[in-house]
Amino acid sequence: MKISIVGLGLIGGSFARDLKSQIGVTVYGVENHEFHRQQAIELGLVANIITLEDAIEISDVIILAVPVDILEYLIPQILDKIQNNQLVIDLGSTKELICSSVETHPNRGRFIAAHPLAGTEFSGPTAALRGLFMGKKNLICESEKTDNDALQTALVIFESLGLESIFMSASEHDKHLAYVSHLSHVSSFMLGMTVLEIEKDEKQILNLASTGFASTVRLAKSNPKTWSAIFDKNNKHLSRALDEYILWLQRFKEAIESGDKNAAESMMIKANEIKKVLP
Amino acid sequence: MKISIVGLGLIGGSFARDLKSQIGVTVYGVENHEFHRQQAIELGLVANIITLEDAIEISDVIILAVPVDILEYLIPQILDKIQNNQLVIDLGSTKELICSSVETHPNRGRFIAAHPLAGTEFSGPTAALRGLFMGKKNLICESEKTDNDALQTALVIFESLGLESIFMSASEHDKHLAYVSHLSHVSSFMLGMTVLEIEKDEKQILNLASTGFASTVRLAKSNPKTWSAIFDKNNKHLSRALDEYILWLQRFKEAIESGDKNAAESMMIKANEIKKVLP
Repeated sequence: MKISIVGLGLIGGSFARDLKSQIGVTVYGVENHEFHRQQAIELGLVANIITLEDAIEISDVIILAVPVDILEYLIPQILDKIQNNQLVIDLGSTKELICSSVETHPNRGRFIAAHPLAGTEFSGPTAALRGLFMGKKNLICESEKTDNDALQTALVIFESLGLESIFMSASEHDKHLAYVSHLSHVSSFMLGMTVLEIEKDEKQILNLASTGFASTVRLAKSNPKTWSAIFDKNNKHLSRALDEYILWLQRFKEAIESGDKNAAESMMIKANEIKKVLP
Repeated sequence: MKISIVGLGLIGGSFARDLKSQIGVTVYGVENHEFHRQQAIELGLVANIITLEDAIEISDVIILAVPVDILEYLIPQILDKIQNNQLVIDLGSTKELICSSVETHPNRGRFIAAHPLAGTEFSGPTAALRGLFMGKKNLICESEKTDNDALQTALVIFESLGLESIFMSASEHDKHLAYVSHLSHVSSFMLGMTVLEIEKDEKQILNLASTGFASTVRLAKSNPKTWSAIFDKNNKHLSRALDEYILWLQRFKEAIESGDKNAAESMMIKANEIKKVLP
């Protein structure tokens, strides 16, 4: 099977690492950034770097791992050119706008809208990890609009990486992810901002930072370009999630300010229930 | 050396584990909660469980690892009864009110106000870990008010656990910790609340939670009693930190809502600087 991966960053590069190790699979890379292209070659992530046109020409499967603002334009252009035995998989972190951009496309059946829930705070080809997806969940949206043969092939690919696929609508996806992923990123980015603003002396932060702070602020190291595109494409749901988060923070602040330890404690007891969900 | 540890939870229990392994050290425990007492005995954390009165009678060093709201009342009571060759170390996470509660005490010189920056989201004697403090920082406040011999003994104890001591005023301590530790905890607790409120279906959270969410929400599993006391004792600084955090979240939300990707991105680029501090 010939697979081309467009975008060899953290996610695309990790797909490349896992796929190229499989018998009978040849992985090609499409990468526009000169520096990333060099890194991908040096790291041996793919058999060859080729153009998007060549990838469309020769691949059985085209996997897209570029920022979500690019996907919206790129997917219809690729679908325009593919044959009925090829398939296109996108791995973007938002799904509503992407799915509507191809909703009425004549080749919609050859497209799989997926989102593997895995990653780190690092980015670029050097961040690519073997086994990143092992045991992780993969969300597939609007699979009823994908041809059965294309879906089956995509599922085999996901399974070969250790991903367990779960099916949902694109709007469900974007709403859930606003809370369970995008909000965490904003909370972490802004925690980093707040602390950097007040603690101008970086040495002091280093002295005082415990493992608790390090884990809460870890996502503030994530790639701004990747995440500004995600936040922008999911701004309605994320804005609602932020409203609710800010409201809880304000309630908690009022409880502390008024010395109402019971109110603060009962909110924390409730929050403790996250233990049941994430043991 | 005879050391008594009052409170055998995560911090006190971890001190016990590391100290009792040292040649010539006998560790006694004082623990009011029946269930924790049983657990501490079963785990062999201490040589013996004794009363506070006996601990004051027989110990060279008394280490206090109970919630900060109790420390304020307990420390003066213990200082009332100790001899001039004994010392009392507290390990609480806030320092201003504790230090003022003993400021004019005739035995102030026998007291060391310390805060080892280590912990996990777990609590109680079963959370106690060998080596928890290895390579971590320990903040000591108002050390100029401690007798030199008492300070030297305390430093030897901290060093034996792998702690590096740093000296600062109690008010500096509380201000910095509001940002670098207490704010992280509130941000995590309220992130847990927000997500639990919207995602009533716990199975769905489990399906959708990535490692990013897990790390950001980890501190929401922390002990509500311990933390409500800390937040209450540091409410002025924490309230200020929360104001600033909420303000940044609101600014970020406005950037997203108005589609101002540049503004959102430049805040994230700034937040990325946390990489330099916590590589």
